[in-house]
Amino acid sequence: MFVLGIDPGVSSCGYGCVAGGGDELSTITAGVITTEAGAPLPERLADLARELRGLIGELSPAAVAVERVFFQTNARTAMSVGQASGLALVAAAEAGCAIAQYTSNEVKQAVAGYGSATKEQVQRMVAVLLGLREPPAPSDVADALALAICHLTVAPRARRIAASAARGGRP
Amino acid sequence: MFVLGIDPGVSSCGYGCVAGGGDELSTITAGVITTEAGAPLPERLADLARELRGLIGELSPAAVAVERVFFQTNARTAMSVGQASGLALVAAAEAGCAIAQYTSNEVKQAVAGYGSATKEQVQRMVAVLLGLREPPAPSDVADALALAICHLTVAPRARRIAASAARGGRP
Repeated sequence: MFVLGIDPGVSSCGYGCVAGGGDELSTITAGVITTEAGAPLPERLADLARELRGLIGELSPAAVAVERVFFQTNARTAMSVGQASGLALVAAAEAGCAIAQYTSNEVKQAVAGYGSATKEQVQRMVAVLLGLREPPAPSDVADALALAICHLTVAPRARRIAASAARGGRP
Repeated sequence: MFVLGIDPGVSSCGYGCVAGGGDELSTITAGVITTEAGAPLPERLADLARELRGLIGELSPAAVAVERVFFQTNARTAMSVGQASGLALVAAAEAGCAIAQYTSNEVKQAVAGYGSATKEQVQRMVAVLLGLREPPAPSDVADALALAICHLTVAPRARRIAASAARGGRP
């Protein structure tokens, strides 16, 4: 089962596709979609939407995990992150993928064991979990791979807990 | 020339199409796109994207005017407004329309003469400018019509000023 993680952004949108399901996790592909800094915003968003659709069409992931963004940070960045996340969610929904959203803290918790891990720690943990020689860079790529890992590890556990609770037992 | 104004939102996205170009402004159509409150966010965003594409395809506006949003307000609303605005900008760009963005203050300035007009004042001014018997409601519809009016009145004036400045004259 392929899971595609997307760290949304207009200037730089990280993506990382991870195969999992059993005990082994492996990287299918990862990278960054960038849009032309000088171009008008609608054009940049349309380019990003096209690239995301192409990527999802090519990889046919079972699920897409998109970072859930909050707006406590820089208002200018927040705006474009919101726009990019909307495009990612629509591209995934239109392709019929299962979709999950995780906060940055949930992702850090899943891959590094605690929610306030640094970017470098996340990059190194992703490298360990996927058996990569080098930590993935830039951090947008590591974050996208971490989102996919988070979905592959957290989602099944949540389902087991829910199923167990439904049976009246303990996880 | 048709201009479609879009007041972006996920729960309620206002739209208003105005014909203009000469001295007369007239309403072609206006309304609100709503998405199902209980549905998952990606589904709601995909529904909104489909409706926006359909609307733009049907009306073939020369230009689409989308409200430019800032994130000083409620963080939850801001998130979905950002996502909706991204979808509107992409739908317009993919249809080959000219695109403009105006802040709420610029729109109020254009239709009501000052940037801090109330919602009711905007609704009443839109009714006057478009020759409507009743102020358009809800306010999302009035805001969308006001965006279209703003584009039809402000954009040509800005072009005249720019052309005059280029000739070395005064506006």
